[in-house]
Amino acid sequence: MAIVVQKYGGSSVSTVEKIKNIAKTVIDRKKSGNSMVVVVSAMGDTTDELIDLANQVTDNPDKRELDALLSTGEMRSAALLAMAIKASGEDAISYTAYQIGIKTSGQYGKSLIEDINKDRLKKSIDDGKIIIVAGFQGINEEGNITTLGRGGSDTTAVAIAAKLDGVCEIYTDVDGIYSVDPREYKKARKLDEIDYEEMLELSSLGAQVMHPRSIELGQKYNIPIYVGLSNSKIKGTIIKGESNMNMENKPVTGVATSDDDVAVTIKNINGEINLISNLFESIASKKINIDMISQTAPIDDKINISFTIPKLELDECLNILKDHCNVKTQVDVDEDITKFSIVGIGMKTTSGVAAKMFKLFRENNIQVKMITTSEIRVTCAIKHEDKLRTVKIVAKEFNL
Amino acid sequence: MAIVVQKYGGSSVSTVEKIKNIAKTVIDRKKSGNSMVVVVSAMGDTTDELIDLANQVTDNPDKRELDALLSTGEMRSAALLAMAIKASGEDAISYTAYQIGIKTSGQYGKSLIEDINKDRLKKSIDDGKIIIVAGFQGINEEGNITTLGRGGSDTTAVAIAAKLDGVCEIYTDVDGIYSVDPREYKKARKLDEIDYEEMLELSSLGAQVMHPRSIELGQKYNIPIYVGLSNSKIKGTIIKGESNMNMENKPVTGVATSDDDVAVTIKNINGEINLISNLFESIASKKINIDMISQTAPIDDKINISFTIPKLELDECLNILKDHCNVKTQVDVDEDITKFSIVGIGMKTTSGVAAKMFKLFRENNIQVKMITTSEIRVTCAIKHEDKLRTVKIVAKEFNL
Repeated sequence: MAIVVQKYGGSSVSTVEKIKNIAKTVIDRKKSGNSMVVVVSAMGDTTDELIDLANQVTDNPDKRELDALLSTGEMRSAALLAMAIKASGEDAISYTAYQIGIKTSGQYGKSLIEDINKDRLKKSIDDGKIIIVAGFQGINEEGNITTLGRGGSDTTAVAIAAKLDGVCEIYTDVDGIYSVDPREYKKARKLDEIDYEEMLELSSLGAQVMHPRSIELGQKYNIPIYVGLSNSKIKGTIIKGESNMNMENKPVTGVATSDDDVAVTIKNINGEINLISNLFESIASKKINIDMISQTAPIDDKINISFTIPKLELDECLNILKDHCNVKTQVDVDEDITKFSIVGIGMKTTSGVAAKMFKLFRENNIQVKMITTSEIRVTCAIKHEDKLRTVKIVAKEFNL
Repeated sequence: MAIVVQKYGGSSVSTVEKIKNIAKTVIDRKKSGNSMVVVVSAMGDTTDELIDLANQVTDNPDKRELDALLSTGEMRSAALLAMAIKASGEDAISYTAYQIGIKTSGQYGKSLIEDINKDRLKKSIDDGKIIIVAGFQGINEEGNITTLGRGGSDTTAVAIAAKLDGVCEIYTDVDGIYSVDPREYKKARKLDEIDYEEMLELSSLGAQVMHPRSIELGQKYNIPIYVGLSNSKIKGTIIKGESNMNMENKPVTGVATSDDDVAVTIKNINGEINLISNLFESIASKKINIDMISQTAPIDDKINISFTIPKLELDECLNILKDHCNVKTQVDVDEDITKFSIVGIGMKTTSGVAAKMFKLFRENNIQVKMITTSEIRVTCAIKHEDKLRTVKIVAKEFNL
């Protein structure tokens, strides 16, 4: 009997009526011979409403308490769904993170699942119960409630599927993973399959469909993840290892863009590795994600160094710079950047992909401010105004 | 340094503004040299709204899931109050029931606190933190969330005060305990002090101010409980053992009335103790609280037996009766009853109190349907229509 772990997002549980529909779907799936574990997000806009409430209390809510507050949203939908299932005559039980020992580490608001105690889950499955789990949350070593970050319920679902050796299905309000965001490129194609690595790059680069950590866990434990609409005949996308897409030898699988970053440039500093490594260490210790880093060759022992960080963390980052640089150091901030990335496992084996893209950029007069690459992606910082035009040109060229 | 355990009810935390005010009050109290533990209820009408949500899902919500749902209300206000305190520069930490090991037993929706793990509380106090506890909830032996019943946060507060050997203050929307409900008798007097036993009787008899179990715990561990308005110069009432009121030798301390019960009469049954004890055992096993029981003397071995139960549990009770009585047994239900009680420790030492009351009833033509007494109270079932008149006459006679 297969163990199916499903996740339903906030928009899928936004009303009592929708919760009842999910109850019906889950019961049908169980009756067709599966053991069911269902991870739920908070109802509709609950999380945003709670954040708003916290912001009414204080501009800068304590992070432990914010996590304690936010975690209640998922507890509510879990209890309600369990009620709905029991009311339909099928046995069900809701669990919070501490009840099934979802252990987390790391920071409040973006903690990582370290382990899950599967005994209680197994027992409930053996008892024939449908298990409903409050997503998005865990308990850290000190016994505090932590949350996993926006979309974290995806990760809860994949982690449970990994632990129970089940299959994982993420139901959301999009019908699958697209090569390009359909809002940015109408002709975007939905992918039948995508490789973990590609999806991971796309997720971290701004494709909002999945919580990046959920893909990491899927890859680590080799759990195929289905992403799609619930109660729909429209086929979604399966995220898995070494997808068939590679057979086509298509170099680029998808495009991702993000407007959430700013570029910071420090000018004319001494090119000593100590200064730079100390600086980046300090930034990392505040868990600020530095992404694109580029450094110019030294002139008279002086270098310029640029990197991108999330807009939200700019203030904190500038404070750190103050501590590390002397007052005369010039720091520039460029807020007019869009990160534009192409991603594809095929790049490993196809050369000239980056060159092809840069040629396109040159021909179309798209200014590239920064570049970083990995084995399976190329990311450029471009101007906001060039975003949609670039998406169109690149998607067409690579047949996405 | 004294440990002060305060409880703030739902109306005291109904808005962010009120939560901020409580933060200020609590911080001031800490600064005047106390260790503070604050138990909070859910914001405003949250609990009713959650019950309503559950009832939209199903007419008969699963009790375990309902408790899981309801417990989130208190978690939210606890996190928000802790945030508010931290934002004011004082250290604070919120705890849910499982985090401080509030162990419960008994039924969902009306479970009892068995124990609290004081280690984490003590540690936080030693660390100088203001502790905020989500009231109304606990974790039973199976690790499930249970709630303590409406008003259960009172009991959370008293239990913590008992465990930490602290003083207990219950802040609510009334300014103290009155001899008679002021809505029923304008001249009602507020009591400076009241004995645990008296308060216990009054609470169980319909005075809604305090959760009865909280008084039991207060008495058991001899914790004086202050009840009153927060942030007010109006003095409230202290519930404690052997209150000074006894010195006056006043036989009656207070009056309580309740319209929440119905009387059930079973007619002409065989007066065998077996039938009756089996019946009451079955009713008790469903945790239906039988209150007033009266039985007529047998005529031809046949007896009538009457008792009162909460209106809400009438249907369940009638089902039990069907199982125990044969089809010909006549069962009457009288919904027109108000339980009217006088309570006073002084009755132990003053005789003729009941007689005096019955004389009043006779003179004023108040029909008494049933009577039960304990050492410190007399309860009569009277007609709804006579309630306010009776309250007035009795309160005047006993100078309440």
